[in-house]
Amino acid sequence: MTSIQESRNGTRQGPVERVGRFVESEPVQKVIIALVVINAIILGLETVPPVFEAYGRILVFLDQTILAVFVAEILAKLAWRRHRFFLNGWNLFDFVIVGIALVPASGGLSVLRALRILRAFRLISAVPQMRRVVGALFSAIPGIMSVGAIIMLIFYVSAVLATSFFGPKFPEWFGGLGESFYTLFQVMTLESWSMGIVRPVMAEYPLAWVFFVPFILITSFAVLNLFIGIIVDAMQSQHEEEEEHIQQGMEKLLREQRDEIRALREDMAKLREAVEERRANGRAD
Amino acid sequence: MTSIQESRNGTRQGPVERVGRFVESEPVQKVIIALVVINAIILGLETVPPVFEAYGRILVFLDQTILAVFVAEILAKLAWRRHRFFLNGWNLFDFVIVGIALVPASGGLSVLRALRILRAFRLISAVPQMRRVVGALFSAIPGIMSVGAIIMLIFYVSAVLATSFFGPKFPEWFGGLGESFYTLFQVMTLESWSMGIVRPVMAEYPLAWVFFVPFILITSFAVLNLFIGIIVDAMQSQHEEEEEHIQQGMEKLLREQRDEIRALREDMAKLREAVEERRANGRAD
Amino acid sequence: MTSIQESRNGTRQGPVERVGRFVESEPVQKVIIALVVINAIILGLETVPPVFEAYGRILVFLDQTILAVFVAEILAKLAWRRHRFFLNGWNLFDFVIVGIALVPASGGLSVLRALRILRAFRLISAVPQMRRVVGALFSAIPGIMSVGAIIMLIFYVSAVLATSFFGPKFPEWFGGLGESFYTLFQVMTLESWSMGIVRPVMAEYPLAWVFFVPFILITSFAVLNLFIGIIVDAMQSQHEEEEEHIQQGMEKLLREQRDEIRALREDMAKLREAVEERRANGRAD
Amino acid sequence: MTSIQESRNGTRQGPVERVGRFVESEPVQKVIIALVVINAIILGLETVPPVFEAYGRILVFLDQTILAVFVAEILAKLAWRRHRFFLNGWNLFDFVIVGIALVPASGGLSVLRALRILRAFRLISAVPQMRRVVGALFSAIPGIMSVGAIIMLIFYVSAVLATSFFGPKFPEWFGGLGESFYTLFQVMTLESWSMGIVRPVMAEYPLAWVFFVPFILITSFAVLNLFIGIIVDAMQSQHEEEEEHIQQGMEKLLREQRDEIRALREDMAKLREAVEERRANGRAD
Repeated sequence: MTSIQESRNGTRQGPVERVGRFVESEPVQKVIIALVVINAIILGLETVPPVFEAYGRILVFLDQTILAVFVAEILAKLAWRRHRFFLNGWNLFDFVIVGIALVPASGGLSVLRALRILRAFRLISAVPQMRRVVGALFSAIPGIMSVGAIIMLIFYVSAVLATSFFGPKFPEWFGGLGESFYTLFQVMTLESWSMGIVRPVMAEYPLAWVFFVPFILITSFAVLNLFIGIIVDAMQSQHEEEEEHIQQGMEKLLREQRDEIRALREDMAKLREAVEERRANGRAD
Repeated sequence: MTSIQESRNGTRQGPVERVGRFVESEPVQKVIIALVVINAIILGLETVPPVFEAYGRILVFLDQTILAVFVAEILAKLAWRRHRFFLNGWNLFDFVIVGIALVPASGGLSVLRALRILRAFRLISAVPQMRRVVGALFSAIPGIMSVGAIIMLIFYVSAVLATSFFGPKFPEWFGGLGESFYTLFQVMTLESWSMGIVRPVMAEYPLAWVFFVPFILITSFAVLNLFIGIIVDAMQSQHEEEEEHIQQGMEKLLREQRDEIRALREDMAKLREAVEERRANGRAD
Repeated sequence: MTSIQESRNGTRQGPVERVGRFVESEPVQKVIIALVVINAIILGLETVPPVFEAYGRILVFLDQTILAVFVAEILAKLAWRRHRFFLNGWNLFDFVIVGIALVPASGGLSVLRALRILRAFRLISAVPQMRRVVGALFSAIPGIMSVGAIIMLIFYVSAVLATSFFGPKFPEWFGGLGESFYTLFQVMTLESWSMGIVRPVMAEYPLAWVFFVPFILITSFAVLNLFIGIIVDAMQSQHEEEEEHIQQGMEKLLREQRDEIRALREDMAKLREAVEERRANGRAD
Repeated sequence: MTSIQESRNGTRQGPVERVGRFVESEPVQKVIIALVVINAIILGLETVPPVFEAYGRILVFLDQTILAVFVAEILAKLAWRRHRFFLNGWNLFDFVIVGIALVPASGGLSVLRALRILRAFRLISAVPQMRRVVGALFSAIPGIMSVGAIIMLIFYVSAVLATSFFGPKFPEWFGGLGESFYTLFQVMTLESWSMGIVRPVMAEYPLAWVFFVPFILITSFAVLNLFIGIIVDAMQSQHEEEEEHIQQGMEKLLREQRDEIRALREDMAKLREAVEERRANGRAD
């Protein structure tokens, strides 16, 4: 690791670049993928008490070693790319995930220890096919922002209303904005909405269905719209490409024809000229 | 506010129009959006007891002030546009929502007080992107009216049947048309339909599944159809536009060609005329 | 009703046809639609005990009168169209629905009395828009027969398996093929599948999830496929029509052009002939 | 069966091929389909205790006989096709399904006895329409592998996290990776996720919603994406075919035209030549 640290100091450019290129090469990336998988299995095995008791030491040692490799890999990339390292979203993703894994090494919080398994998500950033799928998922987000914002607004207004209406008698479900948000999310997923929530509430407030039934209908319709929006978008973009391809093929043919016809007209013009000239000559005869 | 009230009397056209245009200008609308958001946050904070106890007065004062601004805005628009104000559905929407907020100021009903949060929906009428989404949602309604009417009819017939069949022994669920409607809506959403409703009913009426299983299948299929209807419609309209665009591009090319060919034929006709004439001359020689 | 009965005997063709045409005319059909709606409301009111106690006699009388009108209408159509009456599916639908309503008049079964409300479905056969929607629903059925058959087969095999595996210890849920079918339908709709059914079963048979989890995945995937099949079909047919329209427009333009070009070639041929002739003449000079 | 066994020994090619062709002929396959259906009914009847008591012997005998026919059929095909028999996935499917049915004949395990009903799935391999549907289902799998892998990864990471977080206090639900996998699958299907699982967990760990709500949103979104992927794929392939057909029609017309125009130019060239020659002659005159 000494050469990497040197390159971080930026004193010698040569080795930094060489190490950077080496780390980003395909065989090394394949090793990284293998290590991610092995690491995920190790962290999975650690949750099995008898295995952890028997081989805990080895598992922890392997985990630490793999973590060290990941840290070295990211430092090497960071030293080479510098601030441009963070311009790539996937690098940032790796940096945060490995960073989380580093925190428990210093601290002692069990929650942070558990978060080490998030490192398994490096598989997504390392395997191009998965990367593309997640990228597509994210690219669908801007198109659904407006609908998403409306759903959020409906939730906020409904949560305030539910807190005011039902909070006093059902503090566990609607005691505050947080409780109401959670309960309304449950109602939107249709989980026990009637037998679990609305029927008990209607025992106190017989008109509660006036609030909940429209809420279910409106949020379902909005989510449906979100859904349709994504489908139409996804198909639209694929279709357009394809359509454009066909259109270009046809238009090429049509343009060829037009040029052909224009050439014909030019030929015609020359011919006419020749005939006219001939006639003029004829007259001149 | 004096100038606005004057303009409402319609005595002077100048200031009314000037105030109307000012209120509908973009910067003022952006201030309105900000006020809607602040107002929504204030009404949210009022639901948190400790916050309300500490800052209740300020929150109520701010709420009243913002409400006054909204009332002034709507009065200004109303004075300028007059009856045409109500031709725009979004104006009507704002009018009703702010009107609801005005009622509790005079009355003392806690339900109406709670409805003040509905003012947050002004965000939808004020932000053009959200407006468009909701407009699209509404524009999908006529296309699904027939399927919607059939679902309503199935619900009505099923509610009458369920009340006759199961009402006597299960008054809480099927005691009247209202109870049956609610319970059937719950069954359609699949919430606890079997363990909560149909199994207990089957304990009394072993053939109850003959009613409920087809009800679930038919309403699911009808809702599915509604769903497909909207998707096909949404895609259809988008697709048609696009297709039309391509078609127009191609047809323009084809028309250009036809004109080119026609011009060619005219050239040809002239040439032939010239040749014929030449021949006639030749013969006349 | 005497003229109708005469016409049923087929002794005089004139009045039978006149009455038949009258009954099928648009204004009479609009009256029928109104009667269907009134009848549905009457049968709904009969389920409200206080209303039935107070106005029961009038409601029953009105119901009987409207039923008589429906019977007369169908007899008139039947007398005119004879066996061809049954060739139209909607006539058959009306015949069965009104027939059901006639049975309780003779018998005394409360279930059949309740089925009178099914007459409200005549609204579907009487309103053309609704008719079309239901027709579309039925036209989607043949396309999904194979997938439907596979889902049925999966259900049958799963029901036999579940009865063999879990029947002995859970007779209420899996005691026989009928019970298993019902429980598996509940599991497919995801209602209480885990907390209500599978967790208790797993307490006895720890490997029960090996049966239920794949069952849920496979039936969900099959239903998804059914769903996609319908969507693709519906869009396909609409799209094809539209596409065909565009194609025909373009091909018409292309054919016009081809004809134009052919005419041009003929003109050319004539011109050439003229020139050749001229040359021949020239040589002959 | 003697001739079949002889052919298995491969001593005489003639009869093996004749039997093989006979077994694969359409009428024999129709008999097989009928036997599959009869067999499924028999195995269904065996689950009805009174029927089994009365006719158990006959049912078991019939089942054994049909099984013998299936074994003979597969042996005949195997003898004819040899190793190529296993190249067809459907043959392999039949082989395994009938093989399973053979095992309980030798062993005594009740589970394997119950699995005899799997033979009913031979209906899928025997009826071409069903075969096509299942084939289409399988052909959709490669396209959704990446999304499926991501869902698996999310499940694995979530299961490890849930085991670490909630395992100590909720051993029944999150005691090990297996329990967590099952519970998370239940949560993903939204079955009792809140009232049954998350609310009790939140009583111990108030921040548990931070884990479960994003889990539900992310897995729903991922499954949605899977869904859209399949729809877009299915429509894409159908659409492309259709589009290609139209395109080819149009391009044929366009090519015809181009050839026509080229022929015209050649005609023109000849004409011009003729005129030029004529002029040259004219000058030479």
